[in-house]
Amino acid sequence: MSKGKVLLVLYEGGKHAEEQEKLLGCIENELGIRNFIEEQGYELVTTIDKDPEPTSTVDRELKDAEIVITTPFFPAYISRNRIAEAPNLKLCVTAGVGSDHVDLEAANERKITVTEVTGSNVVSVAEHVMATILVLIRNYNGGHQQAINGEWDIAGVAKNEYDLEDKIISTVGAGRIGYRVLERLVAFNPKKLLYYDYQELPAEAINRLNEASKLFNGRGDIVQRVEKLEDMVAQSDVVTINCPLHKDSRGLFNKKLISHMKDGAYLVNTARGAICVAEDVAEAVKSGKLAGYGGDVWDKQPAPKDHPWRTMDNKDHVGNAMTVHISGTSLHAQKRYAQGVKNILNSYFSKKFDYRPQDIIVQNGSYATRAYGQKK
Amino acid sequence: MSKGKVLLVLYEGGKHAEEQEKLLGCIENELGIRNFIEEQGYELVTTIDKDPEPTSTVDRELKDAEIVITTPFFPAYISRNRIAEAPNLKLCVTAGVGSDHVDLEAANERKITVTEVTGSNVVSVAEHVMATILVLIRNYNGGHQQAINGEWDIAGVAKNEYDLEDKIISTVGAGRIGYRVLERLVAFNPKKLLYYDYQELPAEAINRLNEASKLFNGRGDIVQRVEKLEDMVAQSDVVTINCPLHKDSRGLFNKKLISHMKDGAYLVNTARGAICVAEDVAEAVKSGKLAGYGGDVWDKQPAPKDHPWRTMDNKDHVGNAMTVHISGTSLHAQKRYAQGVKNILNSYFSKKFDYRPQDIIVQNGSYATRAYGQKK
Repeated sequence: MSKGKVLLVLYEGGKHAEEQEKLLGCIENELGIRNFIEEQGYELVTTIDKDPEPTSTVDRELKDAEIVITTPFFPAYISRNRIAEAPNLKLCVTAGVGSDHVDLEAANERKITVTEVTGSNVVSVAEHVMATILVLIRNYNGGHQQAINGEWDIAGVAKNEYDLEDKIISTVGAGRIGYRVLERLVAFNPKKLLYYDYQELPAEAINRLNEASKLFNGRGDIVQRVEKLEDMVAQSDVVTINCPLHKDSRGLFNKKLISHMKDGAYLVNTARGAICVAEDVAEAVKSGKLAGYGGDVWDKQPAPKDHPWRTMDNKDHVGNAMTVHISGTSLHAQKRYAQGVKNILNSYFSKKFDYRPQDIIVQNGSYATRAYGQKK
Repeated sequence: MSKGKVLLVLYEGGKHAEEQEKLLGCIENELGIRNFIEEQGYELVTTIDKDPEPTSTVDRELKDAEIVITTPFFPAYISRNRIAEAPNLKLCVTAGVGSDHVDLEAANERKITVTEVTGSNVVSVAEHVMATILVLIRNYNGGHQQAINGEWDIAGVAKNEYDLEDKIISTVGAGRIGYRVLERLVAFNPKKLLYYDYQELPAEAINRLNEASKLFNGRGDIVQRVEKLEDMVAQSDVVTINCPLHKDSRGLFNKKLISHMKDGAYLVNTARGAICVAEDVAEAVKSGKLAGYGGDVWDKQPAPKDHPWRTMDNKDHVGNAMTVHISGTSLHAQKRYAQGVKNILNSYFSKKFDYRPQDIIVQNGSYATRAYGQKK
């Protein structure tokens, strides 16, 4: 008899899993941890069947599971009800970053530990942010569509095409990802880099950005913290969202906050879809209030076929740089979070519980981080 | 009677010209220089009808023109035959950068001056290079297609998705654009930045890149010149082409040179289409030898509807990041090259001929720059 059950929920690889052995994060390849788990005397159950609650395989298998592992890309929502039905549940592991798919309050009440692999995706997501900003401001989509469709109407692309240089760019959240985005922006010679966060960037980080700006652009003092979010978005040509989803950030970018943005600004969200109000964003893109919106996160995942972000665009049929949720699951990121999950399980199985402090979201009934909006 | 004729060949704006007043580079808006030209006593003739030779409007109007202005995005080819038919022609101006659409040898024989607006597009193109690299390596197209098509198959995107971090990236040509690409790459923490050029980067530029790398990545010595092109491409994960088209660079990336590249490397060309052999590139993408090819330049422009680069892709239907020729014609770039053309005309009309030295390609029968492969 096994010591306990580990439930692993991943997206399906199908033929891609056969063709690409580095796809550790799909159900077929099981993060490469089956042998490790079974050697510890635990049983591993895997499934892709996570919806709907309460009739999915996840509901059935979670009832006697001790550990559940899932990803932000294809999340099994660990709701209050599911937690109530899982008396043995001790540990939730996010293979990746962002644990908002777990009801953290309910986890705290039951003293369930919630962990993620902090840092496993930071570079990948920061790169996706840069790709999305450049795609939008340079109207890559307009140019690519013409290329593959056999057209050549330069004016039709150029009318929505700008340079990133000399723009005011801001990030909501200047943590591990937001800061890396700022690093990658400096060489593009921005007019100003702004950030909004509950804590100030370390002096060392600010100094690094300013020194790099001096080298590239001959100007220090490039970075500035803004106290009020409305003030920051009002002066930004590009706003990028890099904060967790929690009760204060849910629905933050609604019609009201967007109305404070500059006309023709760009909004990029690779954090969590629910930080933006989907209909309000779609309407702002359609009207031209926003010149474009892009990112890879959706308020429900997989996004429904009729989600407005799939088809929204402006009068020139551009301004949409959405992708499915891929930024944190590059093949390089998969390797990092597969290893990180193994490390977390090792800490648990050994009963040392010596997790990396930055990986712990909630433990022993309380929040271990201020990033989720608590411990204010 | 006018002092002489200026022939201006630009792309058509159509309804876009009405909707976007910043579209200076289209035929309707005439670079904003009609009044200026007419005030100088010259006649301005404009046309979009540039092909085919010798029956187009360009052929007819060039016969008695003194100055011809055209762009790289929709170039009127100023061939040896056309020059022979235009006895009054004294000055060719490229509204933008890259004068390979002029037969420079024939221009020299006739002592026609050829100028361009050096620097007007460098930031725009460097940004497009960065966009294209990120789009390819992160498989943005795969993710975007699924988003707009109502799909959610994460593995199908991730199997071709990598991080840019820790890669060896090289540029063929380290001039104004190539160097700016290197600047923008440093913060992405590359393993190495390589370049191939007829001249060494200034010590100051190398120092700047290394200092920035120290700041961001804790490692100096990031940049390295490579003497042999084959050696450079053999070790590169990403190769970007940033050199002019001339007799030595025409067809440079053919089947043979591509065979020296790493399997699964990416090739980005925003310089000139004819630097690559179209069929060889398309074959390399199809076979997977190249994981992707992107850029905005084509060997003939407008590219024919059946150009292989429009439809090429790999077995997963990704790996193509082509756009029509837009990188140097963002609305910001249009403002810069419109002003630059005016400055060049002013130098000519005033008979001072005090062009900016960097704008002169050929003058008084000889090459003014080594960048076009001459003056070795």
